[in-house]
Amino acid sequence: MAGTAAVIASCSPDGKSKDKNGTTPDNQSAGHSSEDTRIDFDGEHQAGIKTAPQTHALVVAYDLKNRDSLDKGQRTADRLRRVMRIWTDDARSMTQGRVPLADLEAELTKAPMNLTITVGWGPQLLEKAELLDKVPAWVKNNVHGLPAFKGDKLNPEFSGGDIVLQICGDDLTAVSHAARVLTRGCRDFVVPRWTQRGFVDAPTGETPRNLLGFKDGTAIPRTDEEYDKAIWDELGGTAMVIRRIVFDIPAWEILDRDSREVVFGRSIVSGAPLGGQDEFDEVDLNKLDPTGIPFIDPHSHVGISAGEGKFMRRRAYNWDGEITPLGSSGLIFICFQNDPDKAFTPLQKRLAESDRLNQWITHVGSAVFWCPPGTQEGAYWGSGVLEG
Amino acid sequence: MAGTAAVIASCSPDGKSKDKNGTTPDNQSAGHSSEDTRIDFDGEHQAGIKTAPQTHALVVAYDLKNRDSLDKGQRTADRLRRVMRIWTDDARSMTQGRVPLADLEAELTKAPMNLTITVGWGPQLLEKAELLDKVPAWVKNNVHGLPAFKGDKLNPEFSGGDIVLQICGDDLTAVSHAARVLTRGCRDFVVPRWTQRGFVDAPTGETPRNLLGFKDGTAIPRTDEEYDKAIWDELGGTAMVIRRIVFDIPAWEILDRDSREVVFGRSIVSGAPLGGQDEFDEVDLNKLDPTGIPFIDPHSHVGISAGEGKFMRRRAYNWDGEITPLGSSGLIFICFQNDPDKAFTPLQKRLAESDRLNQWITHVGSAVFWCPPGTQEGAYWGSGVLEG
Repeated sequence: MAGTAAVIASCSPDGKSKDKNGTTPDNQSAGHSSEDTRIDFDGEHQAGIKTAPQTHALVVAYDLKNRDSLDKGQRTADRLRRVMRIWTDDARSMTQGRVPLADLEAELTKAPMNLTITVGWGPQLLEKAELLDKVPAWVKNNVHGLPAFKGDKLNPEFSGGDIVLQICGDDLTAVSHAARVLTRGCRDFVVPRWTQRGFVDAPTGETPRNLLGFKDGTAIPRTDEEYDKAIWDELGGTAMVIRRIVFDIPAWEILDRDSREVVFGRSIVSGAPLGGQDEFDEVDLNKLDPTGIPFIDPHSHVGISAGEGKFMRRRAYNWDGEITPLGSSGLIFICFQNDPDKAFTPLQKRLAESDRLNQWITHVGSAVFWCPPGTQEGAYWGSGVLEG
Repeated sequence: MAGTAAVIASCSPDGKSKDKNGTTPDNQSAGHSSEDTRIDFDGEHQAGIKTAPQTHALVVAYDLKNRDSLDKGQRTADRLRRVMRIWTDDARSMTQGRVPLADLEAELTKAPMNLTITVGWGPQLLEKAELLDKVPAWVKNNVHGLPAFKGDKLNPEFSGGDIVLQICGDDLTAVSHAARVLTRGCRDFVVPRWTQRGFVDAPTGETPRNLLGFKDGTAIPRTDEEYDKAIWDELGGTAMVIRRIVFDIPAWEILDRDSREVVFGRSIVSGAPLGGQDEFDEVDLNKLDPTGIPFIDPHSHVGISAGEGKFMRRRAYNWDGEITPLGSSGLIFICFQNDPDKAFTPLQKRLAESDRLNQWITHVGSAVFWCPPGTQEGAYWGSGVLEG
């Protein structure tokens, strides 16, 4: 069963050396040995993106304080720079098992347990700081957030934000403490706007399951070439889309397992596309069952999204809230890509129009951020843009 | 550091065979081998009490529906019996890695990862069901809840309840799914009243730390004799007290580490009582420092509670909520004892009067439940009382 062997496997979801997918070692792999549960902070790209999902995610969006009419341009950029200097230093320390400068609770982070901290900047902040011409072009198109999609019921409580921190790890005490240290460290400059907490299965090496029971994250980019093509932008950064999704659990529970598989277009047990055998089989929308009907309904979730998986690094987390007779759970859909105008947005438009799954899911939060590239030792997040 | 070795250690916090503390194998020990992450459901006492704390706790209190004036006594007991039959069957299945009867998401619990489900009944429910003369005498004294304590700021949102389920485990997906299956299974009979979620450090074999940075749970009963004396009542059940505590984090952060140690009466790093060397050293309130002052302030947390630890099985979990500039975190204090009128209540009265820690903590939720004894295969929770 999923005993210690599985837990051990969790500590090396990726290999440090070049593996069969052509992945080279960098801070995107949780490829530590059994003696080392740290994920490198510095690297070409930020950690927490290609990194195999840790079991816990705490995502906090902040607004920069004091954004009045006298207070724009260089002054906003100055304050952002101050925040980035402090946060980079503290995040580098905590993820590497060192004590941040102002931390009086060192014991709460001495074992990082794969802690990663990933930062993103909101398009409206970049406009305010007059930095739009220094970042990829999609940012300008999304200054007012992602486009509206059919069926969206967005709650400001889970939308927007000037700066986001995605804090992930396998020890919730360390994750919680990191959020506190970072929030305290910049309390003169930022105020929390929203908080989202997510989890995935204790790692077994298998693709984790969402709370509808399906494997989630089968079709994602895996090789360096796929990442270079679709995920990293020309600066080495990426776009992070965060959508909060609520499930209508009582309605979902009415469906039997066959019906659920039709809605998704995949097998529950194996995760294989319908008509296939294995989770990682190519999706074939033209394959017909003996009666001449396609195995995969063209309006199923997979029927609409087939072929798009390699263009987004999905890193979704489950959430649940207050226990109610109606259930209260869903998904924090997080994806990374070099241009959301070409990846997330057109696909989500198609899904919003006709995905059968829409009957049971509702998007209630939406945010998009540009994640600056990775750092070298001593440098701070986004220094290339803030000093360029 | 706390790598795989630590994770492996987490899978066997207690030994299956009789250990140096005189603990014998039963469903109270998470004493599974590396191949088996199940904790026995059936046994003399319910699991999840003596069991070493798993990393996650989801505690849900429910009220029995339809409690109108025509509807008391036998009818209430009948409904409670129905709920117990269903829940015992489903809890036994899920904790043992089997699929509950009505579960269409079997894949979400196939690896229990130390899942335990523990039930308790509220005193007011036992009064309504006319069962007070069949349970320990303390229940009658607490029909309106625990006594009020100085400084309490109780919120009904986290207080009271007819029935409680403490669902603990090392995989949050399995924990979440268990709550859903159980809530759904009895939705005609019960309605959720409150939900509390807690976590402790990923296990390393050390006493876990609370979010004030201190080890929490050093002085607890450990041997069978200590449990028989203080925890299990004459029926094999126990009293479960649940207190939700909020920390005033910004005020706490003003204190330096020495001051924090004075407040607690213990060392932060080692957990030793001040003036001692080791976490498990006996607390000596009379030991004087070189200037003739007691090492342990008589009004420190340990100064007041010294000597009481063996009489309560504490099983506290950290919680944190929305990230705010003021922080938002605390402790779900859970303790078990055979008579709260002799254990929790008098101690909490003393603490509420003069514990230095009160300056930084506030009790905002309070509930007490009687946990029926354990089950034998085929029997349901509380059958001895409900059929006696």
